[in-house]
Amino acid sequence: MINYEQYFSRNAKNMKRSEIRELLKLTRKPGIISFAGGLPAPDLFPIDDIKEMTRIVMEKEGRIALQYGPTEGDNRLREELAKLLKRDGVTISSDRLLVVTSSQQGLDLVGKIFVDPDDLIMTSLPTYVGAIQAFHSYGGTMLGIEQDAEGTQTALLEAEIAKRIAAGRKPKFIYEIPDFQNPSGITMTLARRKEMLRIAEKFDMIIVEDSPYRQLRFEGRGEPSLIGMNSERVLALYTFSKILLPGFRLGWMAGPAELIQKAATAKQSVDLCSPPFNQSILYEYLSRGLLEKQISVIIKAYREKRDFMIEKLSQYMPKLPGLKWTHPQGGLFLWVTLPQEMDAGEMFHSAVEKKVAYVVGTAFYPDSGGRNCFRMNFSYSSKPEIEEGVKRLAEVISNWKGSRESALITP
Amino acid sequence: MINYEQYFSRNAKNMKRSEIRELLKLTRKPGIISFAGGLPAPDLFPIDDIKEMTRIVMEKEGRIALQYGPTEGDNRLREELAKLLKRDGVTISSDRLLVVTSSQQGLDLVGKIFVDPDDLIMTSLPTYVGAIQAFHSYGGTMLGIEQDAEGTQTALLEAEIAKRIAAGRKPKFIYEIPDFQNPSGITMTLARRKEMLRIAEKFDMIIVEDSPYRQLRFEGRGEPSLIGMNSERVLALYTFSKILLPGFRLGWMAGPAELIQKAATAKQSVDLCSPPFNQSILYEYLSRGLLEKQISVIIKAYREKRDFMIEKLSQYMPKLPGLKWTHPQGGLFLWVTLPQEMDAGEMFHSAVEKKVAYVVGTAFYPDSGGRNCFRMNFSYSSKPEIEEGVKRLAEVISNWKGSRESALITP
Repeated sequence: MINYEQYFSRNAKNMKRSEIRELLKLTRKPGIISFAGGLPAPDLFPIDDIKEMTRIVMEKEGRIALQYGPTEGDNRLREELAKLLKRDGVTISSDRLLVVTSSQQGLDLVGKIFVDPDDLIMTSLPTYVGAIQAFHSYGGTMLGIEQDAEGTQTALLEAEIAKRIAAGRKPKFIYEIPDFQNPSGITMTLARRKEMLRIAEKFDMIIVEDSPYRQLRFEGRGEPSLIGMNSERVLALYTFSKILLPGFRLGWMAGPAELIQKAATAKQSVDLCSPPFNQSILYEYLSRGLLEKQISVIIKAYREKRDFMIEKLSQYMPKLPGLKWTHPQGGLFLWVTLPQEMDAGEMFHSAVEKKVAYVVGTAFYPDSGGRNCFRMNFSYSSKPEIEEGVKRLAEVISNWKGSRESALITP
Repeated sequence: MINYEQYFSRNAKNMKRSEIRELLKLTRKPGIISFAGGLPAPDLFPIDDIKEMTRIVMEKEGRIALQYGPTEGDNRLREELAKLLKRDGVTISSDRLLVVTSSQQGLDLVGKIFVDPDDLIMTSLPTYVGAIQAFHSYGGTMLGIEQDAEGTQTALLEAEIAKRIAAGRKPKFIYEIPDFQNPSGITMTLARRKEMLRIAEKFDMIIVEDSPYRQLRFEGRGEPSLIGMNSERVLALYTFSKILLPGFRLGWMAGPAELIQKAATAKQSVDLCSPPFNQSILYEYLSRGLLEKQISVIIKAYREKRDFMIEKLSQYMPKLPGLKWTHPQGGLFLWVTLPQEMDAGEMFHSAVEKKVAYVVGTAFYPDSGGRNCFRMNFSYSSKPEIEEGVKRLAEVISNWKGSRESALITP
């Protein structure tokens, strides 16, 4: 018997399989209505367009699309990405963009170029589980700042950074998802965005802005992105997974030239280049203006689903003190808070028995917290599934022992 | 002005852009005949088959192929990969395989799960530049053992490991490319393979076997792979880049279950999953038995090109003492050794002026060495290009000041 454990790196020894992804396996059982995954609606994928763009690419430039490509990405695609950002108020030249193999790779590259073992990273609470994993895999520790309805509480953020600096451990950067945050669905106000940039300036720090959902705004006017407000202090991550399809594993990074160059150098050792085949198809798709149409289709569908889910939550959920959910203005998720004494983790197995699933809140907290919370996805399930799933969930919550106790203490 | 350097991780501060990839940019100038890249011949890409398989996938399962997929890879694809290995004498179940986004990602995952800063890694000399980069990016240091015509000199390997262990720094693993090594083109003999496995056993170490070219054998019987000889001590990396096409960025890993599971955990934070779109297309392609035909097409073409390049080298190269090149039995590369006092790096710019390019030997040495060597690729260029390129190269070598000195000292 070989003891394989002895070979592992220190960081690998601490790596845990993502709780969320292990739970996702449970939720694949037949008959389960899952609000757990962050999956886009597959019935909206532009399958015919992709088929057609692939045909065009193969006929026009198969020898290029099937070959290796530049690490930085297909130049024509980068030009299209610069145009996309321009329409969002971010003026940045295409050489300050790096095509990445999913924004998860973007997070990994951020970890690789910035994070040393025992480095501290500021983040909002709750925060994206994939970022926790990526930075943790380089030995980093995330320090969380609770959000309120206006986003990350910047006064607390400023105080915490000051405290850490005084203790001789300045955090490496601030990680933030300002729009329709995963998992909370919260969007930062303009005032908070300005504050966060002021804080970054004050402490000479950079901000990593994760923007997977920003283009999926259902209503109202959006606030400017952090990179749109300060392109020297912000490194932004984007993905096509939510606005088009995840199956290509393509995203991009934008930021200061020095950071993009370092990330590109790191990417050479990570996968040489993102798939040129997928990049060529995506270029053809973007250059025809098809993405804008697709995004409006998605926005319309997801807005309806969000409205429907919130309506059904109001209709079916028991009236318990403290039970509440967020009303996101976009994105894919909402966040449910149970009465303080309830435990969404303990309740999860009852939920799966009742054939409904969510992600337990603790997955989104770097250490502890989130016990009485869970994340619900509204993009993937159909309306009948949403209604039935919410009904089942309401039953699970109503019948849970904690709920009866909660009900008892209600005045 | 922001000082971005202050934010970088220790490993990132040491990252250098790959010399080889920077040089490759020079070689893209119009009119240059490049033997530098490791590019497969694009005129052999099965463009029509890929177009057709994409059409089938989009019609049959577009909603699955464009969605997220499991981190371990498409199960149907993994079954096909297990069959592929079986035909190569490796019996391994599909759950001991991990689909990766290029074998460069395989190397990165190896670095992530095994390498701590200041770890030592054994390798042959010269060795694959992408492995040097990947392990270096985790702070690892490669210790090289020179090859001879039979491959890595295992007696030297054993002595070196023993010496390091005595000094309290046991190397983490042995990295090896046993078949048609990149860059040397050398294949390990069976005796050396057995020795390497014995040494791994003796010191309780594992071997990372990198196998990008193994299926491209032009003649003779192949030796068993290391993983075929011992699937408990060996973690093997494979890629479709050379046997099919690089544009999909797909490869796979095979090895002990514990190592595969750890690599899969690491992969969750690296890119969640390899592109399901590409995996579905590849599955359709493999399940129709198309790969075998494609490999025989490639073997035939590359064998002819290798023969042609060697013929032209014999025909055009000046007769200098010590000037020689390898005769690989497969793969994509051969390795040229110049007379000791010549410097392939200094000569490189004259070569580019003459519009011919190669990769300088030093790129394949973790620290120093390889100064008087260079790598030549024979898969990419056409025969007329090979002839003209070799002619130009012969002229550069003949006219180089070092050559004249060499000629003078010839008896």
